Amino acid sequence: MSLPDPVSLRPAADDYAYTFGGRQPLVTVQPGTVVELSTEDCFGGNVRGVGDLPSQVCTFPYLNPVTGPVMVAGAEPGDTLVVHFVEITPARDWGVSSTFPHFGALTTTHSTAMLHPPLEERVWVYDVDVPAGVCRFRARRGDFTVELPLDPMHGTVGVAPAGGETLMSITPGAHGGNLDTPEMRAGTTAYFGVNVPGALLAIGDGHARQGEGEVCGTAVETAMRTTVIVDVVKGGAPAWPRLENDRFLISTGSARPLEDAFRISQHDLVGWTRDLLGLEELDAYQLVSQAGLAPAANVCDTNYTMAAKLPKGLLGRVRAYDGVHDRLRESAAAYLRER
Amino acid sequence: MSLPDPVSLRPAADDYAYTFGGRQPLVTVQPGTVVELSTEDCFGGNVRGVGDLPSQVCTFPYLNPVTGPVMVAGAEPGDTLVVHFVEITPARDWGVSSTFPHFGALTTTHSTAMLHPPLEERVWVYDVDVPAGVCRFRARRGDFTVELPLDPMHGTVGVAPAGGETLMSITPGAHGGNLDTPEMRAGTTAYFGVNVPGALLAIGDGHARQGEGEVCGTAVETAMRTTVIVDVVKGGAPAWPRLENDRFLISTGSARPLEDAFRISQHDLVGWTRDLLGLEELDAYQLVSQAGLAPAANVCDTNYTMAAKLPKGLLGRVRAYDGVHDRLRESAAAYLRER
Amino acid sequence: MSLPDPVSLRPAADDYAYTFGGRQPLVTVQPGTVVELSTEDCFGGNVRGVGDLPSQVCTFPYLNPVTGPVMVAGAEPGDTLVVHFVEITPARDWGVSSTFPHFGALTTTHSTAMLHPPLEERVWVYDVDVPAGVCRFRARRGDFTVELPLDPMHGTVGVAPAGGETLMSITPGAHGGNLDTPEMRAGTTAYFGVNVPGALLAIGDGHARQGEGEVCGTAVETAMRTTVIVDVVKGGAPAWPRLENDRFLISTGSARPLEDAFRISQHDLVGWTRDLLGLEELDAYQLVSQAGLAPAANVCDTNYTMAAKLPKGLLGRVRAYDGVHDRLRESAAAYLRER
Amino acid sequence: MSLPDPVSLRPAADDYAYTFGGRQPLVTVQPGTVVELSTEDCFGGNVRGVGDLPSQVCTFPYLNPVTGPVMVAGAEPGDTLVVHFVEITPARDWGVSSTFPHFGALTTTHSTAMLHPPLEERVWVYDVDVPAGVCRFRARRGDFTVELPLDPMHGTVGVAPAGGETLMSITPGAHGGNLDTPEMRAGTTAYFGVNVPGALLAIGDGHARQGEGEVCGTAVETAMRTTVIVDVVKGGAPAWPRLENDRFLISTGSARPLEDAFRISQHDLVGWTRDLLGLEELDAYQLVSQAGLAPAANVCDTNYTMAAKLPKGLLGRVRAYDGVHDRLRESAAAYLRER
Repeated sequence: MSLPDPVSLRPAADDYAYTFGGRQPLVTVQPGTVVELSTEDCFGGNVRGVGDLPSQVCTFPYLNPVTGPVMVAGAEPGDTLVVHFVEITPARDWGVSSTFPHFGALTTTHSTAMLHPPLEERVWVYDVDVPAGVCRFRARRGDFTVELPLDPMHGTVGVAPAGGETLMSITPGAHGGNLDTPEMRAGTTAYFGVNVPGALLAIGDGHARQGEGEVCGTAVETAMRTTVIVDVVKGGAPAWPRLENDRFLISTGSARPLEDAFRISQHDLVGWTRDLLGLEELDAYQLVSQAGLAPAANVCDTNYTMAAKLPKGLLGRVRAYDGVHDRLRESAAAYLRER
Repeated sequence: MSLPDPVSLRPAADDYAYTFGGRQPLVTVQPGTVVELSTEDCFGGNVRGVGDLPSQVCTFPYLNPVTGPVMVAGAEPGDTLVVHFVEITPARDWGVSSTFPHFGALTTTHSTAMLHPPLEERVWVYDVDVPAGVCRFRARRGDFTVELPLDPMHGTVGVAPAGGETLMSITPGAHGGNLDTPEMRAGTTAYFGVNVPGALLAIGDGHARQGEGEVCGTAVETAMRTTVIVDVVKGGAPAWPRLENDRFLISTGSARPLEDAFRISQHDLVGWTRDLLGLEELDAYQLVSQAGLAPAANVCDTNYTMAAKLPKGLLGRVRAYDGVHDRLRESAAAYLRER
Repeated sequence: MSLPDPVSLRPAADDYAYTFGGRQPLVTVQPGTVVELSTEDCFGGNVRGVGDLPSQVCTFPYLNPVTGPVMVAGAEPGDTLVVHFVEITPARDWGVSSTFPHFGALTTTHSTAMLHPPLEERVWVYDVDVPAGVCRFRARRGDFTVELPLDPMHGTVGVAPAGGETLMSITPGAHGGNLDTPEMRAGTTAYFGVNVPGALLAIGDGHARQGEGEVCGTAVETAMRTTVIVDVVKGGAPAWPRLENDRFLISTGSARPLEDAFRISQHDLVGWTRDLLGLEELDAYQLVSQAGLAPAANVCDTNYTMAAKLPKGLLGRVRAYDGVHDRLRESAAAYLRER
Repeated sequence: MSLPDPVSLRPAADDYAYTFGGRQPLVTVQPGTVVELSTEDCFGGNVRGVGDLPSQVCTFPYLNPVTGPVMVAGAEPGDTLVVHFVEITPARDWGVSSTFPHFGALTTTHSTAMLHPPLEERVWVYDVDVPAGVCRFRARRGDFTVELPLDPMHGTVGVAPAGGETLMSITPGAHGGNLDTPEMRAGTTAYFGVNVPGALLAIGDGHARQGEGEVCGTAVETAMRTTVIVDVVKGGAPAWPRLENDRFLISTGSARPLEDAFRISQHDLVGWTRDLLGLEELDAYQLVSQAGLAPAANVCDTNYTMAAKLPKGLLGRVRAYDGVHDRLRESAAAYLRER
């Protein structure tokens, strides 16, 4: 089998989308296509120094631009859109992070509404050194500085929502969107339930790295050069986004309160495990309870996201989605060799 | 001043909307116009007997039809849309309620995801006797029956959301939508922040009555004949929907967890009180803390809604929104006399 | 039947308790006894002017003193302790309220932990005019002042907890405690499940009035002269405190998040309605959904409390707990006549 | 410096405690003492086969026995109790897990109260093979079986609570208790704020392993032979339990909703990082946001627990608590060599 020719998608400034749903596709591709994307950072590239306060240089709702949507030929409602991340590479030698008024886990927000004035809005600029694989944090007060490992990922990946909804790109949900999980890195395959013909995939919000929970509300935000392979599995649409890497099956849930995000992700992982291993449901519940991991993804966005992870070693020879992850790993390796 | 001629809006079956946002207006009216609407029930009129299970006779996403949108001339983003409810009258001599799989406060749902099978789906048909002012509950098992007072209201009232979003009509939020508060009855004035030119008001989900919290997920659902007067206050857009009746100012908040809905509503009421009475914020916080009421609206929808109520007696001669509620009460009385 | 002689309980300063559980009874009474209590305010009477900041004049854990415990002879685990409030009268002509660092619904707390400094700690002193039935609020900034109706009640009423636990008096739960519901007023009968021999009733935290939710964290706090009649119903221990007045049955739930407090209270009210009316459970769920009220009690304490109310008119001739509320109303009237 | 002689604590059946607080110490030890403990499993050893349903063979409140309390000489309120886990070894060649009515994350509970009947109560028995380092899961329906790595830990470790409270051992909180984090393994040092003279440490609830979140409500429960070294740091009492191992500083938070547990843990980690590195608070917030991990501990107990982890590599030469972890690691190694 030969892959379709790679497709390049490098949006101009006016081409970015700020919602999932409600947009015409920028491009249509066949299943199995390699797509080479460029993405802007969540501030639209407008925060370039410590003096660029996001609330001053960004304009609502033009936040968190995403690249796409990409229509995938043949993807129909009820199918599973498969997105394998081949490469995610910072496109700049710097990234930024910031506090933002009424955003973050340790501050009053518009929903956790309190009488406090907002925390100070402050910007941090990181050096991003791709060859060395590190980014450098510098305290804004005092001279403390430290290198952190690069771990590039996309905060925002998703498809058009169900029910005819159009959702801002900052919202995570059953359609994906702003999941903000560090698991969305190269080598990972993401699965989304398709809600509209063509699925309408969009990707953005590159992070040079982020902590689990994205506590302050932003990661080390940077533009990315990203390569994915998109594919379609007929049927089998997961209710919530799933991920797979070489070591783990990962279910996600996005909701508030955070225990509901946890419940969704664990409920999905129990069902996935039950189906893959042919277990009765309570047996799968038991196995996931003893073997699973449960890191926070984000606890700052309009919904919170938890991940539920099962070591694939438990599966023996069983493969999720008929082994598409392994096949796309091979396709990715071939692409990288031949590029 | 003479009112514009009343406008009638009686949608055909295909004219209902199922979202806020994403729809062209059905009609454009001038501020001050009386609008006579007909609305369908939340099941689209498809549940007509105890054998009509909603999950079988209704099709996602064609749930909770709303009448509109109505474009209000001159309403601009940042303005306040004013909707005064003149009359809400059940259009049928029956109403229905039901449990619905994965919906309601005392059942596993798609977000409070659990391993239980759904509760039994069951329909109750109520007699609605408008002249007598009562509806009749009949137990499905056994012969218990009791009359409850009619208290007609609309569960769903709202405008197009901010940020270019399109939201299903079952979702309550800053744009209004499915607030499901029994306070939305005749004699009440509702205030919404305008997000798009013309505001794009829509109304639906009539309830012959509902309990606070709408615990089982549905009220006594029925089609309505409803009359509103729409108006515009320039500027002053509230962040969240507000209501006013002859006795209370009412702020609402819609979020999860429920304490965030409470916080939003109380935070808004504190700010409203502060501004109306010229109080320093902590003084307003104190006054609301001792004088306010805080009933649940719904604890079953995709967001939960709380109301925060302040007795208007505390305000002395101060009037919210420059007295528009009192003026619309008079206009409503004039309309009813002359009709 | 003649009542036992009234018992008077007027603790000295060192006699107050600060927990439910873990204390020897101050007095033992027979079922049916009238108990005349004096209670201190939640600050132990130490906040007497606007300069008395609670965090300076009160010492943890000597907060929220309660009067008791009262051992009720014959009350055994599994029984129902009945507490009828005959009179609740402010013992002073003033009351106080305050913000308190890290306490209240619209501020960061030790659990909703944020990086904001605490809100300003501020005290308000109210005039309490018992004969006129009002208390007077005075803004601390500016000269706004307004009278509010007196509505005296007890924030804290409960018994020794189950499981051998000793809980601080500021915590509401299944044992009662700091429910902070305005429903705990004269004319109300409260029902508690008995966990230890004698039940060990304690009462405190009098409020000249409070808003629903007790948003800022404190009500109009004052010492009280309170008369209750205590009684025991053998068996029938409710899982969570219940209340009854002439118009409503009221279930309570105390938990976090607030939707769980709501769920507990509604779940209990559904079961109570089911049992009293002989309904199948889903029929009771439906009836409560359409007829119930759901006000917040407190959204500031270590657990949040919701109330679920059912109009007793729906019950026909059925009486809860075999009519004990009506009988105690009569006993209370007799006591008041003869006093 | 020579260590005090090791102390052995092997309770008889009647010596177990079921609360934190409210108990006399079983033994008093000097700071620096090695304590060799035996602990029972959370079922008191009563669940020994798949036919032993916990709700039938266990009696409330005799659940989750803990070994202790241990009084640590010289530990005063405001000090920091240090507990270093030297060894945690399963004392049996089997462990058990179970569902339990109204307990677990994916089921209705007494607080997340719903109308569903409880999930089926089911017991799983695991083979525990200490030399091989594995335990074996066997499905109850079908013949699926798989080995999981042993990762022995204690679910319940804590001290007497503040405020004179006595809390059931199943509750996690600021005093520690039933944190149910897999981080509480050998090689870890735990820090608790001391609330009463002698701290009154107790330990129980051994798990051969558990998944993050302990979704079904129980882990692979087993009796343990455990060795700890206890020590005291004067002053510096953390508000919430902290842990340290060779790679991470770990803050914990226990609360509901789960985002509050997250907030507490992150807030504590930000403050700890700020203090250790001499950073301004927002700089510490930023650093933790990008470098931290945030796994769930338990989402099933009466409070939920989250952990917040910071890689110690970021600290350079800085050591928490003046390096006590490193010193106790050395003491532990010496103890193990010389034993």
